[in-house]
Amino acid sequence: MLGVCYYPEHWPESRWSVDAHRMRELGLTHVRIGEFAWSRLEPSRDRFTFDWLDRAIDVLHKAGLKIVLGTPTATPPKWLIDAHPDILPYDEQGHVRGFGSRRHYSFSSGTWWRESARIVEIVARRYGDHPGVVGWQTDNEYGCHSTTVSWGPEDRRAFRQWLRRRYQTPERLNEAWGAVFWSMEVNSFDEVELPNQAVTEVNPAARLDFQRFCSDQVAAYDRMQVDILRAHAPGRFITHNFMGFITDFDHFQVGANLDFASWDSYPIGFVERFPFTDAERALWAETSHPDIAPFHHDLYRGVGHGRFWVMEQQPGPVNWAPWNPVPKPGMVRLWTWEALAHGADVVSYFRWRQAPFAQEQMHAGLNLPGLDEWSVGGREAGQTADELAALGPLPDTCRSPVALVYDYATAWTTAIQPQGKDFCYEELVLRWYEAVRRLGLDIDVVPPGASLAGYALVLVPSLIHVTPAALTAFATATAPVLYGPRTGSRDDTFRIPDTLPPGPLAGLTGNRVTQVASLRPGLAVPVEGTVSGTAIRWREHLTTTGTVLARFADGDPAFTATNGHHCLAAWPDEALLSAVMHHMAGVAGLPVVDLPAHVRLRRRGDLTFAFNYGTEDWLVPTQGTLLLGSNLLKPQEVSIWR
Amino acid sequence: MLGVCYYPEHWPESRWSVDAHRMRELGLTHVRIGEFAWSRLEPSRDRFTFDWLDRAIDVLHKAGLKIVLGTPTATPPKWLIDAHPDILPYDEQGHVRGFGSRRHYSFSSGTWWRESARIVEIVARRYGDHPGVVGWQTDNEYGCHSTTVSWGPEDRRAFRQWLRRRYQTPERLNEAWGAVFWSMEVNSFDEVELPNQAVTEVNPAARLDFQRFCSDQVAAYDRMQVDILRAHAPGRFITHNFMGFITDFDHFQVGANLDFASWDSYPIGFVERFPFTDAERALWAETSHPDIAPFHHDLYRGVGHGRFWVMEQQPGPVNWAPWNPVPKPGMVRLWTWEALAHGADVVSYFRWRQAPFAQEQMHAGLNLPGLDEWSVGGREAGQTADELAALGPLPDTCRSPVALVYDYATAWTTAIQPQGKDFCYEELVLRWYEAVRRLGLDIDVVPPGASLAGYALVLVPSLIHVTPAALTAFATATAPVLYGPRTGSRDDTFRIPDTLPPGPLAGLTGNRVTQVASLRPGLAVPVEGTVSGTAIRWREHLTTTGTVLARFADGDPAFTATNGHHCLAAWPDEALLSAVMHHMAGVAGLPVVDLPAHVRLRRRGDLTFAFNYGTEDWLVPTQGTLLLGSNLLKPQEVSIWR
Amino acid sequence: MLGVCYYPEHWPESRWSVDAHRMRELGLTHVRIGEFAWSRLEPSRDRFTFDWLDRAIDVLHKAGLKIVLGTPTATPPKWLIDAHPDILPYDEQGHVRGFGSRRHYSFSSGTWWRESARIVEIVARRYGDHPGVVGWQTDNEYGCHSTTVSWGPEDRRAFRQWLRRRYQTPERLNEAWGAVFWSMEVNSFDEVELPNQAVTEVNPAARLDFQRFCSDQVAAYDRMQVDILRAHAPGRFITHNFMGFITDFDHFQVGANLDFASWDSYPIGFVERFPFTDAERALWAETSHPDIAPFHHDLYRGVGHGRFWVMEQQPGPVNWAPWNPVPKPGMVRLWTWEALAHGADVVSYFRWRQAPFAQEQMHAGLNLPGLDEWSVGGREAGQTADELAALGPLPDTCRSPVALVYDYATAWTTAIQPQGKDFCYEELVLRWYEAVRRLGLDIDVVPPGASLAGYALVLVPSLIHVTPAALTAFATATAPVLYGPRTGSRDDTFRIPDTLPPGPLAGLTGNRVTQVASLRPGLAVPVEGTVSGTAIRWREHLTTTGTVLARFADGDPAFTATNGHHCLAAWPDEALLSAVMHHMAGVAGLPVVDLPAHVRLRRRGDLTFAFNYGTEDWLVPTQGTLLLGSNLLKPQEVSIWR
Ligand SMILES: [Zn+2]
Ligand SMILES: [Zn+2]
Ligand SMILES: [Zn+2]
Repeated sequence: MLGVCYYPEHWPESRWSVDAHRMRELGLTHVRIGEFAWSRLEPSRDRFTFDWLDRAIDVLHKAGLKIVLGTPTATPPKWLIDAHPDILPYDEQGHVRGFGSRRHYSFSSGTWWRESARIVEIVARRYGDHPGVVGWQTDNEYGCHSTTVSWGPEDRRAFRQWLRRRYQTPERLNEAWGAVFWSMEVNSFDEVELPNQAVTEVNPAARLDFQRFCSDQVAAYDRMQVDILRAHAPGRFITHNFMGFITDFDHFQVGANLDFASWDSYPIGFVERFPFTDAERALWAETSHPDIAPFHHDLYRGVGHGRFWVMEQQPGPVNWAPWNPVPKPGMVRLWTWEALAHGADVVSYFRWRQAPFAQEQMHAGLNLPGLDEWSVGGREAGQTADELAALGPLPDTCRSPVALVYDYATAWTTAIQPQGKDFCYEELVLRWYEAVRRLGLDIDVVPPGASLAGYALVLVPSLIHVTPAALTAFATATAPVLYGPRTGSRDDTFRIPDTLPPGPLAGLTGNRVTQVASLRPGLAVPVEGTVSGTAIRWREHLTTTGTVLARFADGDPAFTATNGHHCLAAWPDEALLSAVMHHMAGVAGLPVVDLPAHVRLRRRGDLTFAFNYGTEDWLVPTQGTLLLGSNLLKPQEVSIWR
Repeated sequence: MLGVCYYPEHWPESRWSVDAHRMRELGLTHVRIGEFAWSRLEPSRDRFTFDWLDRAIDVLHKAGLKIVLGTPTATPPKWLIDAHPDILPYDEQGHVRGFGSRRHYSFSSGTWWRESARIVEIVARRYGDHPGVVGWQTDNEYGCHSTTVSWGPEDRRAFRQWLRRRYQTPERLNEAWGAVFWSMEVNSFDEVELPNQAVTEVNPAARLDFQRFCSDQVAAYDRMQVDILRAHAPGRFITHNFMGFITDFDHFQVGANLDFASWDSYPIGFVERFPFTDAERALWAETSHPDIAPFHHDLYRGVGHGRFWVMEQQPGPVNWAPWNPVPKPGMVRLWTWEALAHGADVVSYFRWRQAPFAQEQMHAGLNLPGLDEWSVGGREAGQTADELAALGPLPDTCRSPVALVYDYATAWTTAIQPQGKDFCYEELVLRWYEAVRRLGLDIDVVPPGASLAGYALVLVPSLIHVTPAALTAFATATAPVLYGPRTGSRDDTFRIPDTLPPGPLAGLTGNRVTQVASLRPGLAVPVEGTVSGTAIRWREHLTTTGTVLARFADGDPAFTATNGHHCLAAWPDEALLSAVMHHMAGVAGLPVVDLPAHVRLRRRGDLTFAFNYGTEDWLVPTQGTLLLGSNLLKPQEVSIWR
Repeated sequence: MLGVCYYPEHWPESRWSVDAHRMRELGLTHVRIGEFAWSRLEPSRDRFTFDWLDRAIDVLHKAGLKIVLGTPTATPPKWLIDAHPDILPYDEQGHVRGFGSRRHYSFSSGTWWRESARIVEIVARRYGDHPGVVGWQTDNEYGCHSTTVSWGPEDRRAFRQWLRRRYQTPERLNEAWGAVFWSMEVNSFDEVELPNQAVTEVNPAARLDFQRFCSDQVAAYDRMQVDILRAHAPGRFITHNFMGFITDFDHFQVGANLDFASWDSYPIGFVERFPFTDAERALWAETSHPDIAPFHHDLYRGVGHGRFWVMEQQPGPVNWAPWNPVPKPGMVRLWTWEALAHGADVVSYFRWRQAPFAQEQMHAGLNLPGLDEWSVGGREAGQTADELAALGPLPDTCRSPVALVYDYATAWTTAIQPQGKDFCYEELVLRWYEAVRRLGLDIDVVPPGASLAGYALVLVPSLIHVTPAALTAFATATAPVLYGPRTGSRDDTFRIPDTLPPGPLAGLTGNRVTQVASLRPGLAVPVEGTVSGTAIRWREHLTTTGTVLARFADGDPAFTATNGHHCLAAWPDEALLSAVMHHMAGVAGLPVVDLPAHVRLRRRGDLTFAFNYGTEDWLVPTQGTLLLGSNLLKPQEVSIWR
């Protein structure tokens, strides 16, 4: 199903019914509203003006649209900030981050917590049982603009409290952090400082705890909103719209509050955010890289307990990347189908109509700026709606053959202590994901500790701290498992394991890592054996009791296996990565299709989808029944067969 | 005529008369003094020590030099700052910008306004009718070191006042800014914050208003000084020394206060400031690019109502660029002649003698450091003075065939909202200017709304907001007009026009822009037709009712014409830009000379000047009477013929 | 002799005697302890817990180890900072640099001075005559993490005091700084501000005085500690562990307090700090550049009055560089021998055992993390100890044939006023040093003003201010002297000399510099004559009464000589530099060996050492008696012959 994000407060009331009518005409079924409207709902303290929203909801509902209502907490109004400046967040250098845009609050402000509960309850009580409101979105894009973390007095107070709960005594804190180092010991929790503005680097265990605290604060804040909504909006779903490439908090943790996950998919802007080469950025500038949106679909399907929406789908050029090209014709439709293929229940475009004013005036909508006239994206949305209607209901999404274990704590740990400047966890994960999807395989993204039963192959690009639950899951997996570099290299308190890395995995893997090297650009180590290629960026020196499948040029083991538990002791270049993934698919008994760089496949139930992101045709290798498209998959085209 | 900047306070009184005598000997007629001397005129509150300046002025006057006196407000002394720290400006992160160099004041400080008026009146009363003082310079280099903008409490207070005057009610402010977006609405002007230190980007309309406010503050402050000077210095001219590549305030607006404009010409340092490629920077490192100084001559001739001075002319290597090479022999003379060719009344070198101390000790003068001995630049100044004397009075400057519309508001708007990281208005303008001067054509730089009568060709590299006055000027122009990208894309409140871009120009151009794409390096779109080349950085998708002169590779119009109103819907590469300018010259009926990259021509009255910035000779294509130089224009040489 | 850095407070007491035993077993004789242990010695105000350190010292002493005890002032504990936040330093933007790592103190804090004296006296009284404690280290790594300079109120107070002592009256300060420029004059010392946070650049003389003040503060603070230690630790040596590439304070000045100098040698990390090209960085990533550690050995031998230790020797990969590769096998041994060859008395590895926790957990030790098991570095240390024992006592270090004059004030001056962005004094010095060592010559690094008697050749890469003492040394030198660019270009108050550069050297050199040019990348000037090559980055225009040995392409002198006083008026490229050094060696009558880029020689007494940092063998050109290694010097190998 398709939807759209709409801002009735941006347009004269006289246009609402025309808009609602045209939404239905285009084939949309859902509409999200309200998430930035606080100043119009409560223009000053306790003066409420909900009447316009009542009428807007009625107009949309009467037109047959299902409404998702956002709590307005992402944009506290000026009168509230002026009355309570302690709501504001602080940057790492100690400056207040002020009013003037959005997300100007700290998750640790006590005042903010009370004010949020107040407005959420008022909104929830008013619309909780409205028949048109089918679901709720909490806040908007947690973590956007680096707002998970704040460095003010309220944050310090809350962090000390969090530490007191975690460690009970300063002695245990000192022990956990190894605070004897550099005389960092404290005599009381009130002596603890936030890990910023020190002369040089701060204790990594302290930094990790601060990151965990920040993540916990987001989850608890979300939980507070969810609890209020559940109390006053019975039977309605609750979701949150996550973002791409944000790792500042544990999305699985927030996801646990929700009925399902949503995310905001801007495939093109992300090409400039992810550390692609310049050549890749130019190559994918007008289509996006074929794995960026899919990876997030698979991630949020995992975060959402098997269900997800795209709450905001890019409908054309946007405004916020360093460069903002026009997507190639067909891409808005392709992205929509790609989301549906990965299991999206609803794909909701952002936004209905381009606004001629304010910060996002260069962000395309389904309609041209200020007008009742379809944009290119609007026309493609309509085409997709028609095709979707013709196809009938989509089958359920099944378990994928491959599980990829994704761990936010590893993202935090490697950012705190990269050891090599270009060791970027998100990059490693996406490269592994890309290599597997180039083999035509589907992937589920799962958190560490999740059951691995039923998978044919398990991939662990890196997992710095292996929890007991994760260890059990690996130990009981029947599929072959591949562990990447740095796995098991730290315990729960950021310590190197007494037995050296891979710590608790020593038994399963037979390995012991004695040295690691980060390799600057220009350094590389050849790898030869069952697989071959080159180690770049990172290599480990290890001994093994298992089988050595490939060795570094100096003879040290590079790729090992012990009873299906494989270890890759390097950051692989493209050739080595591809060879390793071919090898693992072979071990797993998974048949593969070698796809060109610009084509991807994906199954949903008994349907197979093919997508062409490139400039050359691709011949669909199927004997099945074509339901959409043709056997010759043209650029920017989609084919579906059963 | 030639002049020099002199600091009698830097040298023992015994040397003044020798200096004055040698100035005359060199052929100089004008001398600027006094603009940084506050601490020597008033060493502490109300203790005045003007006697030395009285004597210095007398010495210079008696030697036959015409004196330009600067008001000393660019350097408020320490005792004043300590008594009134509210004078100090703030940086965008909220830190005070302290004492220790110069321009340490905010244009919005009430105290500063009073103190400035006080010292200017005292100086003006003392020297207003001195026969040797022929004119005045207000302050020094407004905007230098990013001092147009300040972010302190005084600035916030003044900005709120400015907004109150502009909008009268908060409702109108909210409406103008589209503040409903992200709940940015305010209930009173006292709720408005400066547009800095927000969590993410601030409303662009607010930022534009802040920029307008800052520009207004500079103009009003200058006006205050001008009013005092006019009252006490009857019959003397008043000017200000502007800088190169400063767009933080509207120079036409300040120019309206003045009798004529001056500017400080440092051709070589600017090569490192302008976004040239590294290859261009190496090529022009020791001569400057042949259009940098000329563009500014033409700009300030426009700002100065047809008259301008070079108040500070680079006389050798300087101190402030990342690298400071020695100009090639001959360049100081060439730059001087180039300024005169563009209409300068006076070219005044900075400075008389290199100072052996303080911040500018590596800045060359006409004399070697601390000595009465000519530098290379001093000898070239003398040669130029001799040649100028031999040539006799220069004819008046005539209207150029080409008008280039230059708009500070477009510089602000595109900086606030680049949309593509490398969309730089100043760069676009200089590239257009360069392309036209490579055809041997002279250019006048005019503000939007100025009459275009009498021009053969009008160029509008970009003009984001087309005012009614500008529209009238275009509509009544008899010459062909060429509009560049983004023209007409915003209204007065930074909104996209209801009719889409080019807004008010839709009627004249027949165009309607529905999408724009910014293109990262590596993306480019071929253009073919009457002109051909490549679009880089930026392209627009438009429909037209006019003639399509060239199309993008996908068939969309790239270059259109409707009754002489031409539109170029792209940032052109060098080939496309050159082809377009050739085409426009043809349409305008202007004969062109294809000049090599290192040669430029310029007329003044019936004289034609040729300049060689390169390393290869150039054969002057003239049948006229040579007045200076030869037909074979050698590197770093000047030829003049009638 | 060999030693190690040890942290008994990091390990259970039960492990201490095992550790001590294994140190002896490995062949170590010295152990440094205590320098970060304040929070364990005084966990809260006046509660002292020295008993554990008593026992640790006894265990080590009984095992036969000689103990170096560090004063714990580099890590003031939290309770002290909370009681006295005025101890904390400030960054240049005015933010407090807080607790959380180390070196969180300002050298100008009065409180800090008292607290330092208190704890140093307590520790010195307790262990001053302990028979196991043979020497003391003051503090730890002055200047690390940019902590020489601080910008807070305490610093401002102390700077004003320092200026009052230096200049006595504000008039003399104004005169010295040329404060008339830009009305910077002050009426009292209390009007002086620190030279930060000004609108644009601050007076360079003020900045130089601030740098001198900061350097004086370090030296005075160190002196305070030294005086206390001398009073209570009779007969023990006192040293400090300096760092590499730190020029923020004058190390010769601090060295004057000490019995000898020590330094912390991390050859690999420095490859990423020094401005090498990327190609050089990749080439030397796993061995270090062959001159980085040697240059510092020679520097600290000079700072230490002919004696030095390596207090911390890199034993494997470290944690703090952008990339941290594993050293090639053999390098830990090679670096150790290289230090000994340059005259080190003791080479002490950092650290005994890799810590599994806190900021340096990725820093290798002689033992694997947390274990009693040798790392690769540990095994190489053992091998070196054995070889050293077999070789017997090393002969004394003799005077080298070449003296290189190294001047911290020139580093400050060129950083304050680079004039060309890539004019980096440290880089110039290391490139000269490299060129001479490529000729197989040994070098002493000496301060300006030191006697040059006995040297065959004197090199002065640059010496901005030539003091009377330095002038006398040059004038009385019997060896040829080579002066590099900018020498003699400023007087004591940062003024250009009245006679132009080279100021006081005009007589000896016959030269007068009238212009200087900094050359951006892409600009270069050929040099031809007795030597040839290319000037890059910097060239001077001078006249000479001496002999012109080579000229720039425009005919100006580039390389001159007057009675043995040679001047190179350029930053030379590699070819020109090599040619100049060959020429100078010839003039000096020094026989040279042209070494490949990866091989170096060094003498100690009658021993000659050869080191191979590369990948290719080198044939040792000797008829002497081999004491270690072979005539075919393999990669990462050492040969010693008599
Ligand atoms: Zn188009
Ligand atoms: Zn700050
Ligand atoms: Zn010689």
